[in-house]
Amino acid sequence: MINEPGPYDRIRSKTLLGKVMTAEEAAGLIAAGSNIGMSGFTGSGHPKAVPTALAARIAAARERGERFSVGLWTGASTAPELDGALAAVDGIELRMPYQSDPISRAKINAGLIDYLDVHLSHVAQMVWEGFFGHLDVALIEVSGITEAGDLIPSSSVGNNKTWLDLADRVILEVNSGQPAALDGMHDIYYGTALPPHRVPIPIVRASDRIGIPHFRCPPEKVIAVVPTDAPDRCTVFKEPDQTSRLIAEQLVDFLRHEVKRGRLPAELLPLQSGVGNVANAVLAELDAGPLRPLTAYTEVIQDGMLAMLRSGTMSFASATAFSLSEEASAELLANIDYYRERILLRPQEISNHPEVIRRLGCLAMNGMIEADLYGNVNSTHIMGSSIQNGIGGSGDFARNAYISMFVTPSTAKGGAISSIVPMVSHVDHTEHDVHVLVTEQGLADLRGLAPRRRAAKVIEHCAHPSFRDELQDYFDRALHGENGLQTPHLLDEALSWHSRYLATGSMHH
Amino acid sequence: MINEPGPYDRIRSKTLLGKVMTAEEAAGLIAAGSNIGMSGFTGSGHPKAVPTALAARIAAARERGERFSVGLWTGASTAPELDGALAAVDGIELRMPYQSDPISRAKINAGLIDYLDVHLSHVAQMVWEGFFGHLDVALIEVSGITEAGDLIPSSSVGNNKTWLDLADRVILEVNSGQPAALDGMHDIYYGTALPPHRVPIPIVRASDRIGIPHFRCPPEKVIAVVPTDAPDRCTVFKEPDQTSRLIAEQLVDFLRHEVKRGRLPAELLPLQSGVGNVANAVLAELDAGPLRPLTAYTEVIQDGMLAMLRSGTMSFASATAFSLSEEASAELLANIDYYRERILLRPQEISNHPEVIRRLGCLAMNGMIEADLYGNVNSTHIMGSSIQNGIGGSGDFARNAYISMFVTPSTAKGGAISSIVPMVSHVDHTEHDVHVLVTEQGLADLRGLAPRRRAAKVIEHCAHPSFRDELQDYFDRALHGENGLQTPHLLDEALSWHSRYLATGSMHH
Repeated sequence: MINEPGPYDRIRSKTLLGKVMTAEEAAGLIAAGSNIGMSGFTGSGHPKAVPTALAARIAAARERGERFSVGLWTGASTAPELDGALAAVDGIELRMPYQSDPISRAKINAGLIDYLDVHLSHVAQMVWEGFFGHLDVALIEVSGITEAGDLIPSSSVGNNKTWLDLADRVILEVNSGQPAALDGMHDIYYGTALPPHRVPIPIVRASDRIGIPHFRCPPEKVIAVVPTDAPDRCTVFKEPDQTSRLIAEQLVDFLRHEVKRGRLPAELLPLQSGVGNVANAVLAELDAGPLRPLTAYTEVIQDGMLAMLRSGTMSFASATAFSLSEEASAELLANIDYYRERILLRPQEISNHPEVIRRLGCLAMNGMIEADLYGNVNSTHIMGSSIQNGIGGSGDFARNAYISMFVTPSTAKGGAISSIVPMVSHVDHTEHDVHVLVTEQGLADLRGLAPRRRAAKVIEHCAHPSFRDELQDYFDRALHGENGLQTPHLLDEALSWHSRYLATGSMHH
Repeated sequence: MINEPGPYDRIRSKTLLGKVMTAEEAAGLIAAGSNIGMSGFTGSGHPKAVPTALAARIAAARERGERFSVGLWTGASTAPELDGALAAVDGIELRMPYQSDPISRAKINAGLIDYLDVHLSHVAQMVWEGFFGHLDVALIEVSGITEAGDLIPSSSVGNNKTWLDLADRVILEVNSGQPAALDGMHDIYYGTALPPHRVPIPIVRASDRIGIPHFRCPPEKVIAVVPTDAPDRCTVFKEPDQTSRLIAEQLVDFLRHEVKRGRLPAELLPLQSGVGNVANAVLAELDAGPLRPLTAYTEVIQDGMLAMLRSGTMSFASATAFSLSEEASAELLANIDYYRERILLRPQEISNHPEVIRRLGCLAMNGMIEADLYGNVNSTHIMGSSIQNGIGGSGDFARNAYISMFVTPSTAKGGAISSIVPMVSHVDHTEHDVHVLVTEQGLADLRGLAPRRRAAKVIEHCAHPSFRDELQDYFDRALHGENGLQTPHLLDEALSWHSRYLATGSMHH
């Protein structure tokens, strides 16, 4: 194996070449009870081989009646061969800060995994601060190792710098399936510190490079190097459906209106866009429109953003990860010299940093599960108790955005669930942080409105017609309540829509 | 009048001296329907004369059957002669961003005043961004006017710079009741901008001076100068009661423990402290303890902080306003040269700026109305619908703090209300933003805990014994629910404690 040309071209440090081993051997170096910081963000750049080998090791230990589980920390979501494999063998004691895996989700909601749902910008600093305990192992996918032993990042950066800095021991997966030409697309900032030693982060444009292209890592900390050749978890790109297109049109109309009113420049401000089909539809709508040249300061570069970079509608995008379909990955590879001039991938504490987001004035567009009459938004929980994925970076962006927008279809489950409810069953973004709500029914601009006026707008513009009368009825009766009219609620009924859904399968009476 | 020495010593600009008039004359220059940006923060530095004259004018117009109300924007809370007087005559159409006046609160909760409850750091930028409409008049108390026409700030800075910059017309109250020696204690930063022109705010220590001591204001915008000689709304300082002392002891013990564990430096990190008796008790406890020299980067300097500056326990405090008792005001005046070396008052967009708070790593200590099992905090609403005061700066600090702590007595209304509830009736600080809860019963450190583990800690450490069993019963039954165990809730009961209080006067069964 060692003599094959392919994977080993990527390991140019002789010291680290000497540490090459199989995934199984590397997994054997991880002790039960370890906290492991793994790479991976939106299915990009996660380790592809060692987690599965570790899951096998855990399963074997379990069969022998031994306890074996680990703390699993990442950038964000990974893939079935990581979250799924480890959750399937009950190998995860504690998971943070974000996941979207069906097996992992089921185990969390069954109470079998402790899940910490943390703002993505907070993770690195809280680990540095020592709030989550000691980090034993960093397991990081890289796309190559230089002769000097520096690490060329892969298709996501996430918390990798922090994991490499803080872990006692480092296991590297060198993935020759990642384009070698990713090299130069990353901006790893080594200027962070714990207070009282922090200084301003010197980004004033999305395109500002403030770091270096590679991770540093003392070679003596590296205990294993595992060559791999495997693709990221490619997402399936769907052409926007009618609902997504309607949402996208409303949102882009709104932005154009803000430009016309002089409240936004013609090239807008740096976009932040969540992932998914609605987000892709918004990006497609922007790509078709006259506003340009746009920029992005965001978490993730998905298909729609790559298309905007290609067309020239967008001049630059800063993010921490890719999340591409197979077709878009091929496009990236085919024209990677073009994209390398227009993309920077940064650590997520920088891509999501409140300081930078506030300074740049990002336009934040995020999906949600539900909103209530008063503009509170639930991004994480189904019917109050079950986690869906996690808050991710939506809070970092919404709180600090120039305009914070949340989008969702007005109904779910074939019309049985209204995304607009009297009171959300879990709050991730408070009424203080939500400026604009958009569904396919319309857009509610909540800026400058007291709660009662927000409710009227949300019912009129965002609710699905089949739920509008019931929402209006709730609101009217709450307005005649005796408990104060700043935010009128009927507490006995406020969560009854969710209860009814759980009992009957529909929020309708 | 003009020849009397007292007040006019403070108006050294000949141009502006020519604009001196009575409060009634100045109020006569304010048109119905105006948006007025007034000075004032925690009862300090608000205009003392023109608002009352304006209230009389509004009352007279009402008697003639005319419509007359205004939009009232401030820094934060003011005093009876401002909020109270204008609310009493139904003269306020819309109020933002914070109030604590009983008459104003009653009118808001009766649905007679539109109230926008905004993060204090967001106000200035959102007005610049044009989200709240046009600012017609700035009505600002100053402590003097220089020969060049620059304005010497008063006992609070708040949003005054923004109001002066943006208003069409300016009315000044020159209060000779404020110490002339305040001059030099302010740091007015003129480096803010709208994106894409924003740059880093160059504060890296609480004591960093980045601006100038005075406000600029084109004299031609000034339409009236009104001399006054009146005190601020002095707060009554109460010696900490047993409950406050117990809360303070827990919190300071916790901080000392964090120092011992190496998670905080011995001089801590800059403190942010909300106002009130519990906050004063915490400051007194710190003043008595060994940790020093401390600093503060906070909103308000209250009695407890002044005492720490005096004793040398605190070396420097940055804030946007004073909020002192009569005795502490006298102490400030008596030793103002000492304090001027150790205090800076800044615009609230700087005192509360996420960028600076995050960089400095503030230790945020704020009061709350209630918290729930999972660490969500309600800072603003009584029983979900009635506003109490507003979120103020608690969100700016909690979200960006090194450690975010919330404190409250475990019960209210003589034991009828539990401050720990199954689900809060309004969320201002989400589970993602709350690290530590403290009551007189104990302290719950929620860092690194999944929601179920938080609940166990909150019940054990924070709940009042008279409510503990009922909380445990709710939690136990929720743990057997079928709707997911990430954040176990029984939606039919989650808000029943509040409903029961409204129906029976007690949260107890």
